[in-house]
Order: sequence, then structure tokens, then C-alpha cells
Amino acid sequence: MRSAEDGFGGPQSITTDVCIIGAGPVGLFAVFECGLLKLKCHLVDVLPRPGGQLSEIYPKKPIFDIPGYPSILAQELVDNLMVQIAPFKPGFTLGERVEQLKKQPDGRFKIITQKGTEIQAGAVAIAAGLGCFEPRKPDIPDIQIFEGKGLEYMVSDPEKFRDGDVVIAGGGDSALDWAIQLSAVAHSLTLVHRSATFRAAAHSVETARQLESQGRMRIIVNAQLHKLLGNGHLEAVEIRHNDGRIETLQANVCLPLFGLSPKLGPIAHWGFDIQNNQIPVDTEKFQTSVPGIFAIGDINTYPGKLKLILCGFHEAALMAQAAFKYIKPQEHLSFKYTTVTGIQGL
Amino acid sequence: MRSAEDGFGGPQSITTDVCIIGAGPVGLFAVFECGLLKLKCHLVDVLPRPGGQLSEIYPKKPIFDIPGYPSILAQELVDNLMVQIAPFKPGFTLGERVEQLKKQPDGRFKIITQKGTEIQAGAVAIAAGLGCFEPRKPDIPDIQIFEGKGLEYMVSDPEKFRDGDVVIAGGGDSALDWAIQLSAVAHSLTLVHRSATFRAAAHSVETARQLESQGRMRIIVNAQLHKLLGNGHLEAVEIRHNDGRIETLQANVCLPLFGLSPKLGPIAHWGFDIQNNQIPVDTEKFQTSVPGIFAIGDINTYPGKLKLILCGFHEAALMAQAAFKYIKPQEHLSFKYTTVTGIQGL
Repeated sequence: MRSAEDGFGGPQSITTDVCIIGAGPVGLFAVFECGLLKLKCHLVDVLPRPGGQLSEIYPKKPIFDIPGYPSILAQELVDNLMVQIAPFKPGFTLGERVEQLKKQPDGRFKIITQKGTEIQAGAVAIAAGLGCFEPRKPDIPDIQIFEGKGLEYMVSDPEKFRDGDVVIAGGGDSALDWAIQLSAVAHSLTLVHRSATFRAAAHSVETARQLESQGRMRIIVNAQLHKLLGNGHLEAVEIRHNDGRIETLQANVCLPLFGLSPKLGPIAHWGFDIQNNQIPVDTEKFQTSVPGIFAIGDINTYPGKLKLILCGFHEAALMAQAAFKYIKPQEHLSFKYTTVTGIQGL
Repeated sequence: MRSAEDGFGGPQSITTDVCIIGAGPVGLFAVFECGLLKLKCHLVDVLPRPGGQLSEIYPKKPIFDIPGYPSILAQELVDNLMVQIAPFKPGFTLGERVEQLKKQPDGRFKIITQKGTEIQAGAVAIAAGLGCFEPRKPDIPDIQIFEGKGLEYMVSDPEKFRDGDVVIAGGGDSALDWAIQLSAVAHSLTLVHRSATFRAAAHSVETARQLESQGRMRIIVNAQLHKLLGNGHLEAVEIRHNDGRIETLQANVCLPLFGLSPKLGPIAHWGFDIQNNQIPVDTEKFQTSVPGIFAIGDINTYPGKLKLILCGFHEAALMAQAAFKYIKPQEHLSFKYTTVTGIQGL
């Protein structure tokens, strides 16, 4: 294992007070509550941007049960939380999955991602929602050969696909939204969907059809990805029409956007108790069975638990107090109202 | 005791699913959470309007720790909550203090206010914050003789004072704000403050001074209420200047607005456990030691408790589930996300 200490120098080494695994709404708000106690936070998320499910799965859906918001779009809530935590200057490691979480002899923690990023933290808050969201993959033989070589399951930076010949497969919001967006930068864009009915917002389907009529996108319905072709890198995609016909599309990018499915993933092996894919915690500290590791939001369980964002906010507030006491057992924690003191950044 | 059942007919008799005692932010949000479960709510508050401390004590102060709001004025939060709960059509009994809360043999509850309003409820949620807010009273002999007879400690309806000769005492936000507002309807308005420095927002002091220069308000500083005069109803107020001089002001209304101080009040005698002026609850149901009576928000206590509005919101959500099960033990409670189902009013 490489790390900054042993002189090899990992890809990146970060030191923080609280490492928050998961940058969904609850993980983000935890930065605020820790920040009020002058605890610095670093967030890690496998997704390419903060917001968790809200940004990735239903950014444009209204949420009705955030207290004080009769209605708010999911992405708007994420944006507001980002503004709210900005004074506390959190760090972010995005697009990386935490593989290892190890308690050190001094009671601190070492977190290592699959890309080798290493985070040293005084405490850990797991706010990983339903776990890692992993893309649903198409059923194509030897698909992994092309992963990262023209085959991608998520769009982190649209610029990466500028002037490319892009084939997007899927019929949901994600497939339609990215097809529309990438049609503006790609050399050619083809959307392939297995049925003639899209599950995306009507407005998105309409926009895509307009782009099609302008010759800026090709839409092929009743067809599926069949085979990926290329020598070292993707060169073409074979699709199979529902009537059995095979068609070959020139493509150096293929994006099957079939949605994400949650997997607990490596969390299961970090040494604390897990029951039915959830982490049991107490309701005073929201601590796991390992002192110093906390679990907040949808991933935890306790008597009465409701998987609501607003409950995660509460859990984050109490967790922050407990993390402070874990990290700084000698220091006095004074509880102050923000209406009296305002917000002071770190 | 008068009640609808024994034929005397109380001033008002109300039947509801959940009676919420306290219409502060947590009590208001409880309407939303109960409403999602099709439980109808009725709120009772001693204050003349919903919002609790937020509306009464710091309506214009920004709050920084409501998740998703980098900053929101206290009154704005209350207004938003009122919009959020409107689809569930809550009932309100305002300006009345609950005196009695009694469990009936059938497990339901009877709530009676000091004005005789009677509420029959399947469950009770106490969301009374720090208790009843009682006005701080001036130290004047026999003051109670004039209470309700020209002497008031709160303004419920400014119209009540139209064309009156009004003396307001105090130097905080409440005194200044009401002096400004009532100067528009009163025949004469005098503001009396014991020092020359006001504790109110600078902008309010400036507005009051402008009104003074326009002859629409008289401001007397370095003076205090000394004596109330009148025969059956207030006719004049004697004030004592700090230099010892006594001055008599013609007045049929006197409003000492010295702020509110919290008192647990009658809650102490409703039969459930109380520790240090707080109500111990569990963290699954937020239930008191009496089944069917719940306590949420600042008034409750449990390990880890933080007196934060956002924690009260969480408590309201879990309480609603427990209240449902208490009221309808035979019915299946299905948990649905509002992002999927939206809001359906009662």
C-alpha cells in the first residue's frame, strides 16, 4: 500500500477532521453541522457530482416533504445545501469509490479509494444512502473489454465526448437528457431504445424529436445494443432491431444509460455490524458498532427509522456533536444558536 | 365543568385526530406529517398567531441552520410552513391556553382551554417549545385590576386600538414595532422607555423617530410606568421620569411590551413524567410516559437531544407514525414518498 507517510506518495493524500462517505443531501448537511463545531470535512462519492440520488436519479422532480419548502426540485435542494455549506469549505473527492476504511492504533481512520486517494480522518460519517449506485449494464458478451475505452456508464464531463460519434442506449430521463445535451457537442449522436415508448419527461422526448427532425440526432426505437466492435478502443456498435435485423453504427463512444442500482459494496467489509444491508446505530450519537464511525441517512437503521431526508438532517446534527467528542474528548463543546452567533466559516 | 356531552354546551367543541398543543414551527410541521397519514390536526396556542417564538420573539431575525436554507427570516419560515400544511386544512384555536388534558376511558383525550374551548382528540402532541410564553409584567401595584380593561400585554388585533389613546412601554423590537404600527390607527400614541437607548433594530428606531418628528408619536425616554388610573377602565397612566418627576398621560390603552418569559404552566399537571421542566420521551415514538400523548420539539428530552428546529421536524415525522398506530391500531400504515405520490389534502 502506498501512502504519503511511507514515502511513495499516493495519488493524493488528504487530512481532515471528519471524512463523510457519500455526498448526498445528508452528507452535505453534515458538513454544516460539523462546521458549526469547527470540524473540517472531506466528502467522497462514487458519483461524479454532489447530490447523491437527488442529482443523479431525480434532479427535476419536486420534493414536498422538506420542512419549510412546500415544494422544491431535488437539484435545487442540493444547490441550496452547497451554498449553505460553502462557508465551511468542505473538500470533495468525486467519482471515486471508497474501498478500504481502517481504524488506526491512535483511534483515527484511514480511508482509501479505488483510485488510491487516501484520506486521514479523526472520525468517519457514512452517509452512503442505499450504498454505491452502480450502473445497470447491458447484457453484452465481453463488455468489460471496452469499459473506459469508449464504453462509459456515466457522463462526468460532456466535453470528453466533443466531436465523437456517440451512441446512447436507454429510454429514461438520463438517456434522453444526455442525448439532448451531447447532441450539441458530438460529431454524431444516435439514441437507441428497445421500445417505442420513452419513460422520460414528455418535454425531453419532444426536444429530442425536434433535434431529430433538424438532423442533429438519430433516434432508433425497437432496437437494442448487440455487440461492441473495435481493436483496443471502441470503433463500432452493432444493434439488433426487434425484427431481428442487425445494423452496425460507427461509434467511438457508447453510453448505455439504463439507470443505477444500489449496492452496499465494500461497506459490508469495514468491520462494523450490518443487518439487512443497513447499519444499526444508536439514536444518541448515530454511531456504528465501531466507535468513531457514524452512519446517517438512509443507510442506517434504528427503532422508528424513516428513510426521509429530513430525518438524516437530524441525525447529522447529533452525529456532529458525537464526532466532536470522539475527536476532541478533552475539549468543551459549547452549543450556540446560529440566530445568536451567525455562521463563521472555517 | 361544562362540556358538549353534559348538555351545558361549552363555548366551542372540536373533534380531531391529533390535537397539537403549540403552533410553533415544530407543531406546524407535525400537521404535515400527520396529514400524509390522513390524520386531521387541530392546533392550540396561547399566542394570538401561529409561529411560536419565531413569530413572537424574532420574526425578522435570519435563521441559518434550517437545512436547504442558507438563510431564512424566522417569519418567512413560519409563512412557508403555513403554505406547506394548508392542503391538510388544520384547525387553530389561538390566544387560548390549554388548562386541562385528560385521558378518557376509551383512550382518547379531552383538552380544555382557559376560555372553555374543548377539543376531543385521538392523540395529543405537545409541541409547546419552552412552555407557555407569559408576558413580563411591570412592577405596578394592583396591576391586575386593569388587565383586560385597557391594560394588555400582547396585540392580537391592532383594530382593537383604533382611535384610542395608547401608551406603549418598552424599548425592544416588539415595543417599537407595535408603536410604529399602532401610530397609524391610534388617536394618540406615546412610547415610554426607561433608558435613552433602544434594544430594537436600528431601522425601527429610525422610523419611530421620523414619526415623532411628524407629530404622529410621542417618545418619552428615561421614564417608567408608575401607576394606572381609572374607574373600572383605564383612563390615565402616570409615568415617573428618572429625575423623579411624575407626569400623567391620558390613556385608555396601556401596552407594557417587556417581552415574554417561558413558563411550563399547566403542562406540569397533566399526569406524565417531567424532569427539569422537560418531558422525557423515547426516540422511536417521542411518546411521554402516558401512551397517546407525545412530546416534540424543545419541550422534550432524550439522550443526545439538541434544541434545534430541525430536530423537532424529525421528531414530528416519527411521532406521526406512532400517533397513527395509537389511534388506528388495526390499520395498516403504508409509507409512501411524496416524490412518488405528491401531496393529497384531507
